[in-house]
Amino acid sequence: MKKVAVFTSGGDSPGMNACIRAAVRGAIYYGIEIFGIRHGYDGMIRGEITPMKSYSVSNIIQKGGTILKSARSKEFRTKEGRAIAHEQLQNLGIEGLVAIGGNGTFTGAQVFYEEYGIPTVGAPGTIDNDLYGTDYTIGYDTAVNTALDAIDKIRDTADSHDRIFFIEVMGRDSGYIAIQSGIAGGAELVMVPETFTPLEEVIETLKQGWNRSKTSSIIIVAEGEEGGATEIGSKIKVIFEDADIRITNLGHVQRGGAPTAFDRILASRLGLGALEGLINGQKCVMAGIVNNQLVYTPFKDTITKLKPISDDLIRMVRILSV
Amino acid sequence: MKKVAVFTSGGDSPGMNACIRAAVRGAIYYGIEIFGIRHGYDGMIRGEITPMKSYSVSNIIQKGGTILKSARSKEFRTKEGRAIAHEQLQNLGIEGLVAIGGNGTFTGAQVFYEEYGIPTVGAPGTIDNDLYGTDYTIGYDTAVNTALDAIDKIRDTADSHDRIFFIEVMGRDSGYIAIQSGIAGGAELVMVPETFTPLEEVIETLKQGWNRSKTSSIIIVAEGEEGGATEIGSKIKVIFEDADIRITNLGHVQRGGAPTAFDRILASRLGLGALEGLINGQKCVMAGIVNNQLVYTPFKDTITKLKPISDDLIRMVRILSV
Amino acid sequence: MKKVAVFTSGGDSPGMNACIRAAVRGAIYYGIEIFGIRHGYDGMIRGEITPMKSYSVSNIIQKGGTILKSARSKEFRTKEGRAIAHEQLQNLGIEGLVAIGGNGTFTGAQVFYEEYGIPTVGAPGTIDNDLYGTDYTIGYDTAVNTALDAIDKIRDTADSHDRIFFIEVMGRDSGYIAIQSGIAGGAELVMVPETFTPLEEVIETLKQGWNRSKTSSIIIVAEGEEGGATEIGSKIKVIFEDADIRITNLGHVQRGGAPTAFDRILASRLGLGALEGLINGQKCVMAGIVNNQLVYTPFKDTITKLKPISDDLIRMVRILSV
Amino acid sequence: MKKVAVFTSGGDSPGMNACIRAAVRGAIYYGIEIFGIRHGYDGMIRGEITPMKSYSVSNIIQKGGTILKSARSKEFRTKEGRAIAHEQLQNLGIEGLVAIGGNGTFTGAQVFYEEYGIPTVGAPGTIDNDLYGTDYTIGYDTAVNTALDAIDKIRDTADSHDRIFFIEVMGRDSGYIAIQSGIAGGAELVMVPETFTPLEEVIETLKQGWNRSKTSSIIIVAEGEEGGATEIGSKIKVIFEDADIRITNLGHVQRGGAPTAFDRILASRLGLGALEGLINGQKCVMAGIVNNQLVYTPFKDTITKLKPISDDLIRMVRILSV
Repeated sequence: MKKVAVFTSGGDSPGMNACIRAAVRGAIYYGIEIFGIRHGYDGMIRGEITPMKSYSVSNIIQKGGTILKSARSKEFRTKEGRAIAHEQLQNLGIEGLVAIGGNGTFTGAQVFYEEYGIPTVGAPGTIDNDLYGTDYTIGYDTAVNTALDAIDKIRDTADSHDRIFFIEVMGRDSGYIAIQSGIAGGAELVMVPETFTPLEEVIETLKQGWNRSKTSSIIIVAEGEEGGATEIGSKIKVIFEDADIRITNLGHVQRGGAPTAFDRILASRLGLGALEGLINGQKCVMAGIVNNQLVYTPFKDTITKLKPISDDLIRMVRILSV
Repeated sequence: MKKVAVFTSGGDSPGMNACIRAAVRGAIYYGIEIFGIRHGYDGMIRGEITPMKSYSVSNIIQKGGTILKSARSKEFRTKEGRAIAHEQLQNLGIEGLVAIGGNGTFTGAQVFYEEYGIPTVGAPGTIDNDLYGTDYTIGYDTAVNTALDAIDKIRDTADSHDRIFFIEVMGRDSGYIAIQSGIAGGAELVMVPETFTPLEEVIETLKQGWNRSKTSSIIIVAEGEEGGATEIGSKIKVIFEDADIRITNLGHVQRGGAPTAFDRILASRLGLGALEGLINGQKCVMAGIVNNQLVYTPFKDTITKLKPISDDLIRMVRILSV
Repeated sequence: MKKVAVFTSGGDSPGMNACIRAAVRGAIYYGIEIFGIRHGYDGMIRGEITPMKSYSVSNIIQKGGTILKSARSKEFRTKEGRAIAHEQLQNLGIEGLVAIGGNGTFTGAQVFYEEYGIPTVGAPGTIDNDLYGTDYTIGYDTAVNTALDAIDKIRDTADSHDRIFFIEVMGRDSGYIAIQSGIAGGAELVMVPETFTPLEEVIETLKQGWNRSKTSSIIIVAEGEEGGATEIGSKIKVIFEDADIRITNLGHVQRGGAPTAFDRILASRLGLGALEGLINGQKCVMAGIVNNQLVYTPFKDTITKLKPISDDLIRMVRILSV
Repeated sequence: MKKVAVFTSGGDSPGMNACIRAAVRGAIYYGIEIFGIRHGYDGMIRGEITPMKSYSVSNIIQKGGTILKSARSKEFRTKEGRAIAHEQLQNLGIEGLVAIGGNGTFTGAQVFYEEYGIPTVGAPGTIDNDLYGTDYTIGYDTAVNTALDAIDKIRDTADSHDRIFFIEVMGRDSGYIAIQSGIAGGAELVMVPETFTPLEEVIETLKQGWNRSKTSSIIIVAEGEEGGATEIGSKIKVIFEDADIRITNLGHVQRGGAPTAFDRILASRLGLGALEGLINGQKCVMAGIVNNQLVYTPFKDTITKLKPISDDLIRMVRILSV
């Protein structure tokens, strides 16, 4: 393999730049020419492809977002789109791809390989941590710490006013950010899409808190929980009319920011690991870290298999809010 | 004056603890006995009043919120409520008050003085910076930096996806947080309640940005702007259907967090200044900093007079987003 | 087991409070009475032992340091000291201990068990991450992020002035903090006590950087590296007289600060795990996390066995600074 | 004036980029061509001068350091150096300069004007805040908050171990950073070069603390204090042999980091103010903010006049550490 390209695709996550850097520097180290594709598959089709040098990735390891920009591509889902993309790669002699993204990205790469034989090795870039085949995804640790920082701040004002806060954090299908930021933030309850939390449990938790003279409470609600924080909080407001209940949604702030040390190292390992996998003939697999070892998992598995949340963590929320 | 008390009231703001600490340590320095009243006027009525020592305020200067807790009191607005409050103070021999809060707090203190002759000196504790009689209020600098930190993070993801973000920041009647976090965050437009911003200006700003090849834009909307970020953003979505427009509301996170150096020093000066004013016979005035000098402004003025936003700052947003 | 006690000992680390909280709340959950011992073994001897309730550990999960305070005890190393300590525990009916600390702490606990049969389960509290029996120690992730934050800031000024910085980070016998903060900070070289780095390698790295037009460089030196940053930096100054070389030692700042999400969760798991181990009859073992599973390792092993640094990480520094 | 240039010179400070951005965007707004000179006067001599566009300063407002790089120039102090610099400017038709730096920078600009008639308006870029003609210098607020963040962290470990810390902060001739970070950090004593602090006062402060049962103490020492933290701390160690005394020097970390909101706004006002001053015929003056108003002060005054530290602040340290 003489020429490869790297790109980011789908929702951005902190650490993607560290991952790009590792892939680029790794390629240079191994004497391979490497290109950067801007705007994901869309840019591949439009030919937004430029050579990357060592200095192209200087001073980016600490930056949130992605210098290659990201997008969700409709065109690449069409046969015509992929044909043009293939042509663009062929024109430059690019033989393999490092794709940083999630399952949408990997699905595209799988189809692309089946049609044109261009191998892709993926790296898991998503704050949600819901990818099978890796213990942690790039950006997850940063997102949890960003959410936690907000929870700590809200705790200040909740305590000062004896308030109950329902805080919604990201995670459309997954409660990872919720459970971790909830435990770390000392939340009284965490509501995740993986398990059903009846309204009675919320009510019971608040009542028990008052019985133990807790004057403020924080309940973390994952985005994917039915109704979200707004609806759940509103129902509780009706029940406890005298309580001072507030609802807040942390929103897009969780996607940005300088990556934590953990995410920079994870991203560096996975960017390098993906590149090395590609060189060694891997294809249609995602580089991941399982039990602190680099492993490659077929896209077919990352796409179809689920990564469950540890019961231990769910149990811990209850014990620690005693 | 032998015995005084300090309390926080109204919405909490970062730096209130530094202000409490300064009042307490100042009293001890001058050989005066000082009490802390919990939960503002409500606690005054309920007798939640305890002696404060030097160690009572150890290790709190860096903490958000208020260790004395805060509340908005309905009861103190009644004659009966104030009568009980007065009795509680009399029982303990408390002759004067340091009140950390905003105009609601000061209005109560004014009435209380007129009825019972108990002098109060105020310190401006509110993140909104909308109090006449001081260049800065306690908590404002921290709130601006918290908002800015969020804007910086959102900029990362906005850039990566070529998105337009409408970000709502706090400020029900005042655009201070909006204008400062907007300038510091490099926003393309800032919408404040003090001046009317027609929808056409928003449209024009976005178009000009595209003409200059800006691919992402950030528009800061003060809470008090008619419609808020949600309504304004939704209207723009209808007009620019192809643009990727997102709306986010920073919410209560802006009220918490460790105070900045600026706020801790400001709070320390004003807490000490309020205490010293009280000792020196001041009453029904708020301690403030104007042109870096400590000044006392009658509650009557802080309540009725407006503090305008500098035109310079509004002009600067436009120039700097060229 | 009806009554247990928890204490912190040796150098403090961020997350110790989260660990104390988990042990206390866990004990309450299981209906066991729990005491807190202040100042480690010294306080055990002096009888600084008080009952802990649920509210005793409210609002401490986010705090650096240890509310129980820590110390290194000379007296506990004597037979007389331990005899008094045992008497103190007996007087209160305390049957088991949760000890948060490092190998010094565990050595004491082992001897204490052999003499008096009081079982201890340990939790690894040290920023150095050099304890066998756990992948991560409590405080390590926070210390790495604190060091990284400083490195990021120094990079700003290094770049602006085309300077070379030798930055010393903590780690007397271990290069963990150095290697992780070095990779995450994009350092050009990392010097750790586990491997010998000849001065020629430092010289070569700087020369290669200049050849590739790098104008600034950062070299991370672990505290335990012979000579430290000061001596090594000074030798390099003599060789490259024209280069602008600076030396800085990050110092004790690495021990403090609000723990990261990672450390709070780790500390919560280990505090609860140690308590549950104690209840279930474990003794003279340390609770740790290996491959994301809770495991108990005999003190004899944590004290005698070494935890090596991954060669992968050392290799990565070289590749990524290409 | 049709063509101007902007540069940074002397020690870098956070906010310089925001200042560059404001000068560049301001010039574009007024229809003036603007160039950036890299590496200060050295780059002027070597002709490192390039046109700046609006996008040249996109996404830099939040970055520490200076994208134009900085240097202290020996050559510009020679007549020959300045002659070449003048030639370089003449070749490009540059008629005026915006210089971001301190008194060294302004001294050079003054001489350059006297010799060649090229007008310069300065902006105060230094973390030390020791420039006459402005209440605040660019970078000062950020440096104070960085120092404060470190002090907060050290307080955690000082408290946990009942230790005394001597912390050295930047300020070769000025105690501004020391006094502000000391007050905000709740220090027991602050030692600044502006006033002589006898060793007896240090001893007395520590003794009084112990008498009031303070178990830990923090003493802030400005870099310019005779002996610095190392020497003073060592002397105290000899006197109080049993006390656990530590010394730490915060170092270059204080120069970097994302600027605070305050610094970004200050820098934006001063960058724009300097540019507008230049357009309006100002020369050999520094733009500053005094009592919240933009003012221009002759270099001759900024260079010769001193800005004293407020006695109020020094008095406050003593009262608040009661």
